[in-house]
Amino acid sequence: MTINRKKVSVVGAGFTGATTAFLIAQKELADVVLVDIPDNENPTKGKALDMLEASPVQGFDSNVTGTSDYADTKDSDVVIITAGMARKPGMSRDDLVANNAGIMKSVTQQIVKHSPETTIIVLTNPVDAMTYTVFKESGFPKNRVIGQSGVLDTARFRTFIAQELNMSVKDITGFVLGGHGDDMVPLIRYSAAGGVPLEKLISPDRLEEIVERTRKGGGEIVNLLGNGSAYYAPAAAITEMAEAILKDQRRVLPSIAYLEGEYGYSNIYLGVPTILGGNGLEDVIELDLTADEKEALDKSANSVKHVMSVVDA
Amino acid sequence: MTINRKKVSVVGAGFTGATTAFLIAQKELADVVLVDIPDNENPTKGKALDMLEASPVQGFDSNVTGTSDYADTKDSDVVIITAGMARKPGMSRDDLVANNAGIMKSVTQQIVKHSPETTIIVLTNPVDAMTYTVFKESGFPKNRVIGQSGVLDTARFRTFIAQELNMSVKDITGFVLGGHGDDMVPLIRYSAAGGVPLEKLISPDRLEEIVERTRKGGGEIVNLLGNGSAYYAPAAAITEMAEAILKDQRRVLPSIAYLEGEYGYSNIYLGVPTILGGNGLEDVIELDLTADEKEALDKSANSVKHVMSVVDA
Amino acid sequence: MTINRKKVSVVGAGFTGATTAFLIAQKELADVVLVDIPDNENPTKGKALDMLEASPVQGFDSNVTGTSDYADTKDSDVVIITAGMARKPGMSRDDLVANNAGIMKSVTQQIVKHSPETTIIVLTNPVDAMTYTVFKESGFPKNRVIGQSGVLDTARFRTFIAQELNMSVKDITGFVLGGHGDDMVPLIRYSAAGGVPLEKLISPDRLEEIVERTRKGGGEIVNLLGNGSAYYAPAAAITEMAEAILKDQRRVLPSIAYLEGEYGYSNIYLGVPTILGGNGLEDVIELDLTADEKEALDKSANSVKHVMSVVDA
Amino acid sequence: MTINRKKVSVVGAGFTGATTAFLIAQKELADVVLVDIPDNENPTKGKALDMLEASPVQGFDSNVTGTSDYADTKDSDVVIITAGMARKPGMSRDDLVANNAGIMKSVTQQIVKHSPETTIIVLTNPVDAMTYTVFKESGFPKNRVIGQSGVLDTARFRTFIAQELNMSVKDITGFVLGGHGDDMVPLIRYSAAGGVPLEKLISPDRLEEIVERTRKGGGEIVNLLGNGSAYYAPAAAITEMAEAILKDQRRVLPSIAYLEGEYGYSNIYLGVPTILGGNGLEDVIELDLTADEKEALDKSANSVKHVMSVVDA
Repeated sequence: MTINRKKVSVVGAGFTGATTAFLIAQKELADVVLVDIPDNENPTKGKALDMLEASPVQGFDSNVTGTSDYADTKDSDVVIITAGMARKPGMSRDDLVANNAGIMKSVTQQIVKHSPETTIIVLTNPVDAMTYTVFKESGFPKNRVIGQSGVLDTARFRTFIAQELNMSVKDITGFVLGGHGDDMVPLIRYSAAGGVPLEKLISPDRLEEIVERTRKGGGEIVNLLGNGSAYYAPAAAITEMAEAILKDQRRVLPSIAYLEGEYGYSNIYLGVPTILGGNGLEDVIELDLTADEKEALDKSANSVKHVMSVVDA
Repeated sequence: MTINRKKVSVVGAGFTGATTAFLIAQKELADVVLVDIPDNENPTKGKALDMLEASPVQGFDSNVTGTSDYADTKDSDVVIITAGMARKPGMSRDDLVANNAGIMKSVTQQIVKHSPETTIIVLTNPVDAMTYTVFKESGFPKNRVIGQSGVLDTARFRTFIAQELNMSVKDITGFVLGGHGDDMVPLIRYSAAGGVPLEKLISPDRLEEIVERTRKGGGEIVNLLGNGSAYYAPAAAITEMAEAILKDQRRVLPSIAYLEGEYGYSNIYLGVPTILGGNGLEDVIELDLTADEKEALDKSANSVKHVMSVVDA
Repeated sequence: MTINRKKVSVVGAGFTGATTAFLIAQKELADVVLVDIPDNENPTKGKALDMLEASPVQGFDSNVTGTSDYADTKDSDVVIITAGMARKPGMSRDDLVANNAGIMKSVTQQIVKHSPETTIIVLTNPVDAMTYTVFKESGFPKNRVIGQSGVLDTARFRTFIAQELNMSVKDITGFVLGGHGDDMVPLIRYSAAGGVPLEKLISPDRLEEIVERTRKGGGEIVNLLGNGSAYYAPAAAITEMAEAILKDQRRVLPSIAYLEGEYGYSNIYLGVPTILGGNGLEDVIELDLTADEKEALDKSANSVKHVMSVVDA
Repeated sequence: MTINRKKVSVVGAGFTGATTAFLIAQKELADVVLVDIPDNENPTKGKALDMLEASPVQGFDSNVTGTSDYADTKDSDVVIITAGMARKPGMSRDDLVANNAGIMKSVTQQIVKHSPETTIIVLTNPVDAMTYTVFKESGFPKNRVIGQSGVLDTARFRTFIAQELNMSVKDITGFVLGGHGDDMVPLIRYSAAGGVPLEKLISPDRLEEIVERTRKGGGEIVNLLGNGSAYYAPAAAITEMAEAILKDQRRVLPSIAYLEGEYGYSNIYLGVPTILGGNGLEDVIELDLTADEKEALDKSANSVKHVMSVVDA
């Protein structure tokens, strides 16, 4: 029996894609292929080589390569899609959706051709609709196409809570449902510090401020950077999801998952608590929601449905 | 400015003490001095050298030494006490307490002499009373003398829940108050899997069985081993507490802490949620308890008070 | 495509076997099955459970189980053999060899039955002859049966050199050929500190003392412990070899390898520099030796041949 | 005794500075302050916040902050300087030197004011002359001002050798003297794979090609990226040097060190093998050089002297 290294391909060699590639290689989760369009082939190779040259010092044994040829992604265990464009001045939101949906379709065809058995994790925004696009185009079963948003939203929430309480981030747990950003539905009653419910430690008003800051967390970074958007925390988030699958960990993590009746929704990709393991998305965990929470989730679902309709149009 | 390595001394070179020394060295938290009685000096040196010889392969840079001379523990940042005897046939429980209290006193005198500014973590059983003994003998402020039990109890609880749910231990949180073992007061409503309350995932009867198994967790290992008691999980627990202090992490971890009014108790060492950081025990977190929980905690406190009275006698 | 966790079985639940199981689980290299004889089944289960209960705190997701039933080792990726007895008073060395060879045969039959495609790493002493016994009994190709000695010997050498020079063990490299212990052939000219040859940094006499201490390194620990032998460094050594195979790292590590003409020897297991990767032993690296080195290696080989003849008798 | 977290300040929030900040935080080596000019304050804060938001998922407890106010760097244990400009079209090399020397002086004044006891590591190019500038301006003793080049050069060399031999980077050691890039003096006879000298494994011609590729390693990345230069491997290199100091590891690493007679040079900063520990640069290791090596080192030293003369002018 030969033991082969695992392989992850990261589509899109921008800051998020590159940082994801580095974090995966650094943890020796897999060899990494970073793939971008032919026009960007040399910079992609340059970033990959630079990462590889960090390996003797950082002490990791993963190979990292850059390419524009999807043949190099053959038989990937996991494929991560970070490709896509940001909204340009004068571009409508629907135009952006249509544009990125086109990119998703073309990328997905390549992935399916070279890695028909892989699991795909989507990060491109608007992530719910883009994950849906990849799902449709791939023809993959729903357990092998998921999107990232809740791990990142929760990470931001945990960071702000840890700062507020001057406690270690390691002991803060959080919980979100629904879409990314404004549509996020945080379940405060399921969030805690060292097991102690946050409501015992922080006033409702202050908690609401922190929730609101979390909702706007992506925008806060965009505003600070002036030119570009967050990539460290998004890359860390997607790396954690990939690790859960690559190591068959059965982690309990929020994913953008395809629902068929869960939470009362069907034919929609929505952020819910899930189990991630060797089969990709292994389970959706259903929770009783309060009326308020259900209403917020409905709003989030409607918003996703609208964007999905643009994709389906 | 010279940067000096941190230093931890571990008193007692039995399985728990030795494993603790190894885990601390392995994480490069500090150089470690493993100290035992003169009769056991050579085996102590042997274990320390064996650990050190693992360092090139495991890739850690900490020094590990064995000794019977407390002068070698001079200026330790943290001292961990694992020394003590197990109950022998025909020995009463009170005799055991008196015996180990004597060991605590003699060990504490040596620690105080050589490391007057250190923080002490006690593991020796019965841990509540032994921590109290060390506190009294040392004359240290209460933030610099704590005991371990809840981190271990919680670790066992989390292990059993992870097995029950076939989920990663990384996503299970638990919460216990009160004394070690039979006196443990688990707060199930504050325990969760990926943020989802356990009560949503496991039936009350099955949860009660798991709580009971946790209470008897030390005995389960003793019965299996036939000769000896658990040491891997206890060593991991005490290492996590030491790390929180050595790295000033402000972790939210359960500790055996000296109470002065918290939870309605005074002049007692009892297991409560605490903040551990660079000042040792930095804070006790108080929670509202249900009547049932308060009753169970009273029972636990009475049991501790009884053992403390043996020490004070 | 389902991604399955890797699996390692460790035969022999003594200190070395148990510590090896822990180090492998801790690094999340694989789920671990610790297997011992039926008489020792409960302690084996106890140690495995104790390790597992450390996992929430140490943050690893590997399963660890104890058993006496080889069916539980089914389809292991790697099997590590630490079983065997120590020499008892009045027992001749040849009797010990015959005894342990009998254990190897019986263990190997079980391994082959349940994991016909696995790679076996042998630690039981005398390790050269025991590896040979396992090779013969298994009928496996030579790349899937290797023994450990040089990683441990080198680790000890590096430790002593680091102490001598007051430098980090991370920057000391060493190199040994030949058998374990007294038969070890250190190639000083290939050993360095941060790339600087040791001969530039340490006098020949002092170097010879350190080499001699390395040769007697196992005995030094035995003498200190009084009762038992080293297990931390041996467990670390075997974990590094297993990791190289499980992660297909193509590490350059010394192994006890079956030679067919390399270095002028045939039909013998001897310690040589090798490449370890996903196919087990992937290559033997041949070096030019000086006349002195070749003579020392011949002596080592003769000594191994003698013990092998006892096994073959 | 209160245990305080360590603190590292990184001057310059470009790709290399930011990546260095992330790697240091990720390893929990210290809290990190990322500092840049007022015009760049918001992006600096944005990058720091993004890193911090990765911490709950990556599991590190370090604080990361962005600022343009050097008061925030107060009492840093280590300060890393990555600030500086790249050569612009039409700018002479001497103009670049003069320009960056001005930046070094102004940055150094701020560092010295707020962290008079710190150790400074310089990465800005031309690194030998810039380290000299910081040394002069700071008035610090020579053990507290060093530059980085050899760790990076060696990392690249090791990467290329590992690729050539299809072996793990973990087992490749390399060794360089002299200046960065074209002036690098590799000591091939002190480079090895698993202890085996490279000259036994690779032909002289092929080795010379790999050395030449290493010399041009920075340019290779610049050419591929098209716009910008390497930052992953440089950040990893400087992190390793900082770790050696912060953990008092006495690593044997190449540094740009101030020489007072070593290797026959005085009043010059040059790349030599050094010991890095809690006192910064604790020792320079002197080696016998062949005539060829000495000649190459002389050439490198002359080149550095020339650039230093521009600074002194």
